[in-house]
Amino acid sequence: LPFRKADIEGLALGSAVLGSGGGGNPYIGSLLLRQSMETEGVDEVRIVPFDEIDDSDFLICSAGMGSPAIGIEKIPNGTEHVRAFRTLEAFLKKKATIVSPIEIGGVNSLVPLIVGARSGLPVADGDGEGRAFPELQMTTLAGFGYSASPAALGDERINGLIIDAISDRWTERLARAVTTVFGGRAYVALYPIEGADYRRAAIPGTLSLAIGIGASLIEGIKNKDAEDALVKSCGARPIFTGKLVDVKRYNTRGFAIGHAILDGFEGYAHQRLKVSFQNEYLLARILGAGKSGESDGHRTVACTPDIISIHDESTLLPITTDQLRYGMRCKIFVIPVAPKWDFEGADELVGLKAFNLEESVT
Amino acid sequence: LPFRKADIEGLALGSAVLGSGGGGNPYIGSLLLRQSMETEGVDEVRIVPFDEIDDSDFLICSAGMGSPAIGIEKIPNGTEHVRAFRTLEAFLKKKATIVSPIEIGGVNSLVPLIVGARSGLPVADGDGEGRAFPELQMTTLAGFGYSASPAALGDERINGLIIDAISDRWTERLARAVTTVFGGRAYVALYPIEGADYRRAAIPGTLSLAIGIGASLIEGIKNKDAEDALVKSCGARPIFTGKLVDVKRYNTRGFAIGHAILDGFEGYAHQRLKVSFQNEYLLARILGAGKSGESDGHRTVACTPDIISIHDESTLLPITTDQLRYGMRCKIFVIPVAPKWDFEGADELVGLKAFNLEESVT
Repeated sequence: LPFRKADIEGLALGSAVLGSGGGGNPYIGSLLLRQSMETEGVDEVRIVPFDEIDDSDFLICSAGMGSPAIGIEKIPNGTEHVRAFRTLEAFLKKKATIVSPIEIGGVNSLVPLIVGARSGLPVADGDGEGRAFPELQMTTLAGFGYSASPAALGDERINGLIIDAISDRWTERLARAVTTVFGGRAYVALYPIEGADYRRAAIPGTLSLAIGIGASLIEGIKNKDAEDALVKSCGARPIFTGKLVDVKRYNTRGFAIGHAILDGFEGYAHQRLKVSFQNEYLLARILGAGKSGESDGHRTVACTPDIISIHDESTLLPITTDQLRYGMRCKIFVIPVAPKWDFEGADELVGLKAFNLEESVT
Repeated sequence: LPFRKADIEGLALGSAVLGSGGGGNPYIGSLLLRQSMETEGVDEVRIVPFDEIDDSDFLICSAGMGSPAIGIEKIPNGTEHVRAFRTLEAFLKKKATIVSPIEIGGVNSLVPLIVGARSGLPVADGDGEGRAFPELQMTTLAGFGYSASPAALGDERINGLIIDAISDRWTERLARAVTTVFGGRAYVALYPIEGADYRRAAIPGTLSLAIGIGASLIEGIKNKDAEDALVKSCGARPIFTGKLVDVKRYNTRGFAIGHAILDGFEGYAHQRLKVSFQNEYLLARILGAGKSGESDGHRTVACTPDIISIHDESTLLPITTDQLRYGMRCKIFVIPVAPKWDFEGADELVGLKAFNLEESVT
C-alpha cells in the first residue's frame, strides 16, 4: 500500500477520530508530514500490510510524548523523531526494517510516516493501542509482555537520552520526568520488537482504518451525511449533544489533565455531561439532577478503553482535548476499542483504575 | 601508590574535611569500600600519580548523585557504581583505563576506589573539583571546556539511563530530574576524557591530599593537637566557634538546601553565624546586631569556592550537612580552594551567583 500526500488529510482526520481527543494536534502533524515528504522528495511511503510483516523484520515505534497543549506551541522541525529513532538503533546495534505507530491519534499516527519519509523505511499497518492513551506502558505490546525499553528520547535542542528500565512503568516515569525537563514535549523511539512478536501483540490494520475513516468523513461532509459516514466507518454511536460550558485543564506531571462540562440540547435538553481527560478523553458521565452532594442520577455513558470522540456539532470535525473552548457546540460519540484489548489484565493497564478515575463512578 | 584498607579511614576523614560538608556521608562510603575490597579479595587499589597519567589513558569519573540526606537512607550495595561505569563504556564503545573521582568529598572520593576494587582499574590521584559541589557542571573539567556527557546513570533497582546532552547544564538538569525519579539518589559515570585533557583540566593530587589530611587529623586527635594538624595539613583557618541553635533543611529539586544558625561562644560570644548550604556549605556570614530589616554589621567570613568545614568542637571531627543537629557545639574553618579554580568564568560556575546566594550578601 502506498501512502501519498493526498492521504495525509484523511489520515489526520481519521486519527483525530480514533485518538479519543489525544495524541497531539493532527493539523501540525499534517504540516510536518507534508513538509518531510516534500523536503525529501518522497512521493509515497510504503505501508506494510499487517500480515506481510515478516519474522525477520525488526520494528521500532516512533512517537511524540507530552502534553498536546504544549505540542501546539513547541513545534518540531520534523527531524527530531528520526534522530531519536537512530539513537535507539545505534544503542541496540540493530537497524529497524519497519517503523510502527505506538498509537493512532493526532500527530502520533503521522509521526511514523515522517520517520518513513525521512529514512526511507516503510511503516507498519498496525499500532500498539488502536487509539491513543496518555502513558507509554498503555499498549497491547506491554499487555502481551513486550518491553517499552530500551527507549530513546530527544528534544528540539538535540539533547538525547536512552532509557533501559526494569519495567514499562519505570520507563514511563523516567521518560515523563525527562519530557517535563525538555519543556513538556519529547520525541521518542521505543518498543523495539521482532516481526513475529509484533504480529502477536500489535493491533492490525489501524493505519489503513484511520485513513478509511478520514476519507469517508471527508466524503460524508461533502454529501451532508457526515454522521452516517462516521457511524458506518468506525461503529461510532452518538451519546450526547451539547454546548461546552466549562473546561478545566491543568498541564501537570507532563500531562494535560482536566474535564469538560456540556449542557445538552436537542434530545439531551436539561441534561449535563462531564467528560474527564488525561491527554485523551477517558470517561463520559451524565450528571444527574440530584441535589449537591448526592450522586443519584449520575451514570456513565462511555468509558476507557472505549474511544470517546467529541465533534463539532455542525461540521462533525473532531475536537481534540487541546482544542476545547467555552461555547463550542458539540456532538459526542463512543467508538468500540479494538478487540485485541480483550485480555486479562487490560483493565489494570487502561481501565478507569489506571487513571485514578474509579472514584468518579462510585 | 597502593591504596589499602588501612587508608580508608584517613581518606574518609580527609574527604569530609575537603568536602565542605557535602558529597554524601563518608562513613557509609567507608563501609561500602571495605566491603567491596573484601568481596573482591582485593588488598590494594592502585592510585595513579597525576603526572603519570598518560596521553593514551582514557578516564571516566564515577560518583553518587543526589541529596546526601537521602544517601544515608538509601544505601547502595556497592555494585551500582560499576554498572553505571560499564554502561557508559558500552555506549562509548571504549574502555576506560583509569577511574577518577569527580569531587573530593564524603562518599564521592571513595566511590572511584569502590569501582577500582570491583573492576581492577586504577584510580587517578586527582579530581574535577578539589572539594565537593552540588551540581555536576561545577568542575574544572567543565571550566576548561570538557563535557560531562555522555553520562550514564543507574539506580539500585538496575534501571539504567544514558544522557547525551548539548551542554553540562542540560546534563545536570536531566540527571537531576532522573535522580529525583529514582528516589533522590543515583549512581553516575560521566566526564569521559582523554589522559592529556585530564592532566590539563583536572586538579592534581587531591586523593593523596585527602588521605594525608585524614591521617594527620587522626594522629592529631590522638596527640590532642587536632586543630594544629588541620591547620598544617590543609591551611584551615578558624572563623567561628558556636552552638548550633537552628537548622533549616529542605530536600527539594534533588538537593538538600538550607542553612544553619550558630550562637558564638569563646572568642565569638554575642555573635551569630549563618551558614547556607546546598548539599555543601557555601556561605558563612556573621549576622550583625542591626535591627530587623537592617543589614548593618552583617559580614561574610567565608564563601564559595573556598571550602567551609564545620567540626565538632571537642573531637574536631568534621560534620557533614546531613549530620547537622540542634545543640551541636561546633568549630568552623575556612580552607582555601585549589588554585586550579583561578580562571576566568570560575565565578559564574561556582561563585555565589551560581547558587542564587548573591542577594544574601547585599
